[in-house]
Amino acid sequence: MAIKMREQKFEKDSVSEMIEWLATFGRTTNGGVTRPLFSKDWRKAQDALKDKMEVLQLQTYFDRAGNLFGKLPGTELGSKTILTGSHIDTVIDGGKYDGAYGIIASLLATSQLFQKYGYPKKTIEVISLSEEEGSRFPLTFWGSRNISGAYNLETVKDVQDGDGIHFLEAMKESGFDPKEYQSNLRTDIERFVEIHIEQGMILEKNQNTIGVVSHIVGQRRFTINVVGESNHAGTTPMYYRKDAVSTASKLITYLTEKAKEFDPLLVATVGKLNVRPNVPNVVAGEVEFSLDIRHHQEDVLNRYCEDIFAEFERLSTDLDVQISQWMDVKPIAMDEKMNQVIRQLATEKNISYQDIVSGAGHDAQVFASICPTTLIFVPSQDGISHSPKEFTRIEDLETGVELLTELLYKLAY
Amino acid sequence: MAIKMREQKFEKDSVSEMIEWLATFGRTTNGGVTRPLFSKDWRKAQDALKDKMEVLQLQTYFDRAGNLFGKLPGTELGSKTILTGSHIDTVIDGGKYDGAYGIIASLLATSQLFQKYGYPKKTIEVISLSEEEGSRFPLTFWGSRNISGAYNLETVKDVQDGDGIHFLEAMKESGFDPKEYQSNLRTDIERFVEIHIEQGMILEKNQNTIGVVSHIVGQRRFTINVVGESNHAGTTPMYYRKDAVSTASKLITYLTEKAKEFDPLLVATVGKLNVRPNVPNVVAGEVEFSLDIRHHQEDVLNRYCEDIFAEFERLSTDLDVQISQWMDVKPIAMDEKMNQVIRQLATEKNISYQDIVSGAGHDAQVFASICPTTLIFVPSQDGISHSPKEFTRIEDLETGVELLTELLYKLAY
Repeated sequence: MAIKMREQKFEKDSVSEMIEWLATFGRTTNGGVTRPLFSKDWRKAQDALKDKMEVLQLQTYFDRAGNLFGKLPGTELGSKTILTGSHIDTVIDGGKYDGAYGIIASLLATSQLFQKYGYPKKTIEVISLSEEEGSRFPLTFWGSRNISGAYNLETVKDVQDGDGIHFLEAMKESGFDPKEYQSNLRTDIERFVEIHIEQGMILEKNQNTIGVVSHIVGQRRFTINVVGESNHAGTTPMYYRKDAVSTASKLITYLTEKAKEFDPLLVATVGKLNVRPNVPNVVAGEVEFSLDIRHHQEDVLNRYCEDIFAEFERLSTDLDVQISQWMDVKPIAMDEKMNQVIRQLATEKNISYQDIVSGAGHDAQVFASICPTTLIFVPSQDGISHSPKEFTRIEDLETGVELLTELLYKLAY
Repeated sequence: MAIKMREQKFEKDSVSEMIEWLATFGRTTNGGVTRPLFSKDWRKAQDALKDKMEVLQLQTYFDRAGNLFGKLPGTELGSKTILTGSHIDTVIDGGKYDGAYGIIASLLATSQLFQKYGYPKKTIEVISLSEEEGSRFPLTFWGSRNISGAYNLETVKDVQDGDGIHFLEAMKESGFDPKEYQSNLRTDIERFVEIHIEQGMILEKNQNTIGVVSHIVGQRRFTINVVGESNHAGTTPMYYRKDAVSTASKLITYLTEKAKEFDPLLVATVGKLNVRPNVPNVVAGEVEFSLDIRHHQEDVLNRYCEDIFAEFERLSTDLDVQISQWMDVKPIAMDEKMNQVIRQLATEKNISYQDIVSGAGHDAQVFASICPTTLIFVPSQDGISHSPKEFTRIEDLETGVELLTELLYKLAY
């Protein structure tokens, strides 16, 4: 009895303790974390995690893309792998939960299962994915897309970071010599399970602890250029103007109002906007703005885009509007069978949950193209993420680990 | 007869020749002119003009603010001065007509009158005003406001240019030692007449050669801050957002549409707009935009501002909108009696003209506070100014000189 209580104490402390411990690698002065791919802090974090996995009796190895694995071999001959984890990299001055929580939760769940039940039937591998955020190099999902076979050295042959450091140079510097690179494609993965903070406020507003992700949204991103005519703000009557700011404002007003009424799960965002020449007393000749549109149904994305771009035509009259798309990520469904298991486990454990659509991209969407995959959310306070203010309550972190443990047990034992 | 023809040849060439000549002081690589206050090119231009005035038999002198005068003394004892001219400074990479044309036209008109009729009854002074544009230091009308008594050394005691050079230092460097400064206030000016390019496209669109300025508009400038909440573009549903870009767009759409219907001569411009954090996949937390409103009637400005600011309140709902005004220039009327004379002269000479409101600020508005003042416009091709592309046809430049000559004859002889 005394021993059991000590164990529980250890479990309870460990999620939050491990979050704090992992956040020490790349901690910023204002309490955030900066851990871009192949940086020194990134390498230290991976090495420290490797040590931790070994202490917890997992077999560890790196692949050639910088992904770290902690393996608990299955007893069933020729069994495929149940893969679970998330990414170790962070945005600049990001939070300590994004990515990190998924690795830690997977590690704790696997270790607890091993302590309780010994080796599983099916191999479980905990993964600390090398890169997902795209915060250092202009590409995302380097870790998972190496495993899915979508990326290899060819992908990054012209890629540099903001300081002009080449991807291959950074890779070598970090101990992953491109000369030793070989394919990291995995064909032995049976399922992938990721747990992650929601990064939104839906669970919090609904007072639910668990989000069972049904889909990860499709994302389309555009740059919209409104080209009018720069004129003197005092001497050009309103009816002679080709004012790019005024026209861009009409387009933005239309697209955001339309998004609200079009579908409750559709989001459309103009987050970036640059005006030329950007002077108070000159009518703007040009406005360039970004447009980010997300929904989990391709059809909704299609219809919404058709509607707004037709209206752009009507609203721009004698100004020129150029629309160029630079991202088209398809919506993807999570594995419904696995989700059924999760809902059932949550009900049994009296954990409040709801189905949810992920509005952010996750490694799970890459794995979903090669195996049945699911994604589980825990709440984010005020929906804040990618910020030192990112926060999830210890109780919620623990409930996530508990549910993941139960799920892995169902899948692997 | 032969002599007369040579004289006419000289007159016809001289407007455009002198425009080109004056533009050599501060000419930029792409054909523009950069001649900020107290710069070397500015000083060279003033000195060259002084020489030119002397060749044309005017008595020259500088005041302590850098204004250059060319005087043709009146024969009537104790007569006041008819002052005519414009400003010598330019914006960075500006055009060769803005300001310069007014000085050259005044100089040519005065010289022609002297050649034809000798000394006038009333003293005529041609003025090359030191500064109007505010392109070097964050203040405008240094030249005219010294003469009106609104500015003196005290005004500039904390003023620096973009390179951190103090106003007084630049002044001394240029040969106007602040130690020798004394008041430049003039109480002996009977009238001020300025001729200037329109900087708009109204004369051109209406195919008129002369604009008789009835008013110079009042100008109000504001900075509007829309403060919402920065959020993840994927995980924040539309109805939870406090999107500063979307709200700013609604305000801008409203204010520009309202300006169109409110009054045909009202102009409202949002020329500058900055978004924070200005990232495609983040809902903007803050937008700051400029608002420049102009009309020649204070009452219209009042009513329009009341309307839009009340609507801002309604449109911003749960976002915070801060409005701060940083400019309030009152509308000012030109002298209607002088304008009557101008219209009559134009009719007699068969010159096409129209009444017009000046949407830009001019030295004339400063002089209007101390004496009857008027402002005459010639067309600007495509309404372009403050640009190397600034252009006015030679015929229009010449018609302007002709009309100004007739007007000065009426006023001074």
